Amino acid sequence: MEQQDYINRDENGKKYCGTHVIIDIRHPQAGTLDDVDFMENVFREAVKVGGANLLHIALHKFEPTGVTGVAILSESHISVHTWPDQGFAAFDIFMCGESDPVAAAEYIKSVYQPLDSDIQVFKRGMSVLNRE
Amino acid sequence: MEQQDYINRDENGKKYCGTHVIIDIRHPQAGTLDDVDFMENVFREAVKVGGANLLHIALHKFEPTGVTGVAILSESHISVHTWPDQGFAAFDIFMCGESDPVAAAEYIKSVYQPLDSDIQVFKRGMSVLNRE
Repeated sequence: MEQQDYINRDENGKKYCGTHVIIDIRHPQAGTLDDVDFMENVFREAVKVGGANLLHIALHKFEPTGVTGVAILSESHISVHTWPDQGFAAFDIFMCGESDPVAAAEYIKSVYQPLDSDIQVFKRGMSVLNRE
Repeated sequence: MEQQDYINRDENGKKYCGTHVIIDIRHPQAGTLDDVDFMENVFREAVKVGGANLLHIALHKFEPTGVTGVAILSESHISVHTWPDQGFAAFDIFMCGESDPVAAAEYIKSVYQPLDSDIQVFKRGMSVLNRE
């Protein structure tokens, strides 16, 4: 499969290479942070919601607790690391091209319904791609 | 292998779950952004420099150009996405516990010697872990 590697441009015509959404959630009121199968389903659905293409998925259950997972996409990646004893999970959604990582992030938040969350959005490469 | 999931604390005692270093580089003067084997070696060495433990590594070569790679660690992950025609690569190094993602980032920068780079460091979960 070809990489979706076309360059994004913002409203001022400045170049960037993909949007990276960082999502820290705490105290989910739904779902679970310690179940690999549950997380794999969340990832697969988030890829669809974002309009991206899944190339490879790898999840790992730690003992006694915690899950790490990565989905490699044609458009970059989704990752998660969970600390269930803290009720905490750190997701990253990095997608380039026409896909919609913000929609994927909103989907993930809607699954877990955290009492607290912090979402930040970065346009990757913006500072280094527009200097010349 | 157990997850290195102990909570980090900053100089004020505030909790966070791992340090996430974002590295955007442009116009490398050494190395290559389009070679999976080269990138795998960079990843394996960065894991060692950071003092982390590698669980799984997956790299993918796009046609005609570009590499995506992810290393899953006991301490979280390293990822890369490259746009060789732009001379651009976006690395993420996310490590918790006693490991040193900043040292791993400095190693990566030393390999590529980019003409331009942008490095940002985040303490993940800082905002949601210290509110109660």
